[in-house]
Amino acid sequence: MSADVMEYFRKLPEEGADGVDGRRVTIAEIAAEAGVSVPTVSRVLNGRTDVAAGTRERVENLLSAHGYVRRASRQRPGGAALIDLVFNDIDSPWAVELLRGVEESTHAAGVGMVVSAVHKRPASTRQWLQNLRARTSDGVIFVLAGPGPASTELQRLGVPVVIVDPAGNASADTPTIGATNYAGGRNATEHLIKLGHRRIGLIAGPRDLLCSRARLDGYRAALDEAGIGDELIVQGDFTHKSGFAGLGRLLDEPGRPTAVFAASDTMALGAYEAARQRGLRIPDDLSIVGFDDLPESRWASPPLTTVRQPLVEMGALAARTLLRLARGESIDVPRVELVTELVVRDSTAPPR
Amino acid sequence: MSADVMEYFRKLPEEGADGVDGRRVTIAEIAAEAGVSVPTVSRVLNGRTDVAAGTRERVENLLSAHGYVRRASRQRPGGAALIDLVFNDIDSPWAVELLRGVEESTHAAGVGMVVSAVHKRPASTRQWLQNLRARTSDGVIFVLAGPGPASTELQRLGVPVVIVDPAGNASADTPTIGATNYAGGRNATEHLIKLGHRRIGLIAGPRDLLCSRARLDGYRAALDEAGIGDELIVQGDFTHKSGFAGLGRLLDEPGRPTAVFAASDTMALGAYEAARQRGLRIPDDLSIVGFDDLPESRWASPPLTTVRQPLVEMGALAARTLLRLARGESIDVPRVELVTELVVRDSTAPPR
Repeated sequence: MSADVMEYFRKLPEEGADGVDGRRVTIAEIAAEAGVSVPTVSRVLNGRTDVAAGTRERVENLLSAHGYVRRASRQRPGGAALIDLVFNDIDSPWAVELLRGVEESTHAAGVGMVVSAVHKRPASTRQWLQNLRARTSDGVIFVLAGPGPASTELQRLGVPVVIVDPAGNASADTPTIGATNYAGGRNATEHLIKLGHRRIGLIAGPRDLLCSRARLDGYRAALDEAGIGDELIVQGDFTHKSGFAGLGRLLDEPGRPTAVFAASDTMALGAYEAARQRGLRIPDDLSIVGFDDLPESRWASPPLTTVRQPLVEMGALAARTLLRLARGESIDVPRVELVTELVVRDSTAPPR
Repeated sequence: MSADVMEYFRKLPEEGADGVDGRRVTIAEIAAEAGVSVPTVSRVLNGRTDVAAGTRERVENLLSAHGYVRRASRQRPGGAALIDLVFNDIDSPWAVELLRGVEESTHAAGVGMVVSAVHKRPASTRQWLQNLRARTSDGVIFVLAGPGPASTELQRLGVPVVIVDPAGNASADTPTIGATNYAGGRNATEHLIKLGHRRIGLIAGPRDLLCSRARLDGYRAALDEAGIGDELIVQGDFTHKSGFAGLGRLLDEPGRPTAVFAASDTMALGAYEAARQRGLRIPDDLSIVGFDDLPESRWASPPLTTVRQPLVEMGALAARTLLRLARGESIDVPRVELVTELVVRDSTAPPR
């Protein structure tokens, strides 16, 4: 890859947000003018190398004509760099672990980390985007969701994006950082099978998240491999409350499970409380495995067996990837899954 | 208060960091030149109203002569505002609650929140300060500690500071936001006394934090009022581990307590695990009260009785206070303690 291929483009915020013809030029218009698809323009903007040289040149010329400028020519007074970390909500211990990881990487690089929560509200996203436009940003990390309605504007501004643990709606040219959710779900279930359990429940995560689906498929694969036909699945939404209710439903069914895999630690702790209220001791009467390895899982009574998701490392890698893109460097692997690991503590034991 | 009294001063970052004579001018030098104390210069810089008019004028003239400029004349390209939120470590659920509160206020005001962790390391603080100087900041919220070595530089730059839950080393002219730790400690202990407990242990927080001392004094006051002479105090450091070890030490003493007040939820959860390992049931064999009301306390098995510290509100108020200072407005009350509240859940019961 040559150096110029690795460069990408960015509109100078100081020059205002409009094209040279005085109105906003969208990526779609540039795509139409160049006779290519919108994703192709995105790939050029994001410094991706999988665009034919002739196409790239045509798109670059149009971008330039419409007021986009080469990344290298961008200068901010003071010269300091800021990146944005955008959550839907900063309400879970899960969010903090990622935040710590991003902060470690950005702090080490002398870059400020602006943290925002948009609460899935378009008005809130617009407010954030307005603030970003005014102060500028060298890149954005979205957690659990893609840029959504902000996508076009960020592309137009030439602000690179990285997504952590995508919900499944990321556009194909956006780098993503995730964890091996499928392998993790499989390991959790295999651990219970090895202990001798045959009736194993699953409290699943939200259906619309890819990570939930992967954990569920991992659970199914482990059961299938062990020749266990009975799936015992209840739907949860990653909240404590849904873990509490989920275990209740599993225990109310005939042929109740002797072990449960909760697809998040928070749901596992909800299941703890449901077990306690029914007088079931963990792990004597019921084994429980979680997913995440939040600090709370170590502090639970008993300490929770869980699948460690390397959240701090995921945040740190997302930040390093973003800073590379912000420097106009290419990235080798646009989609990365960091390895999960089963951490055996005191909440699992052989069935009685 | 007239409008000019409410203004305060700030060095234009764009003009470089030195005084007009080409070297750094410290607050101490300006104080010496004006024949006033350093805190008086600080008060003028911070827009405080408790400085005599003649003194104020003398100090303002000197600040101006040494290159400090009026807040109102400051302009940043793009015009957007950023504030900084500085933790020692972002490793506790406690930190997140504050962060959420600050984010809610800044987001609503269209202001970006830059989050940093300095890990009590001077090199890390210097790195952060260097980043801040380059990008500028409209104000800084420090959590649990004062600005420390950054204090002089922030004053020189005219960047206002607010401290949340001070460790006791805040300078007298810095606004602080805390909670009623003394009343909270007292309420927690009184709750146990009302249930009939007479042997009540305390797992105390770090000695060097004012909030720990206030909670301990509240515990003592409640015992004293009830005519209970026996204090059962072990030292903790707000970690889960120290709560675990602390309850162990309390239970190993002769005349073991029937109830324990842990000065943080995290230590209370450590005590939960120590109780579980000794076969003690909560609340049947031992009552436990925490302090903070972190989300984890609701999720604990059994849900934890605790003293609610309004962390989100504290963060939000700190941000609103800082934004007022950043706009050059005065604040009415430089030190605020928000009210704590006892939340009774399932971890406390009468002694057997």
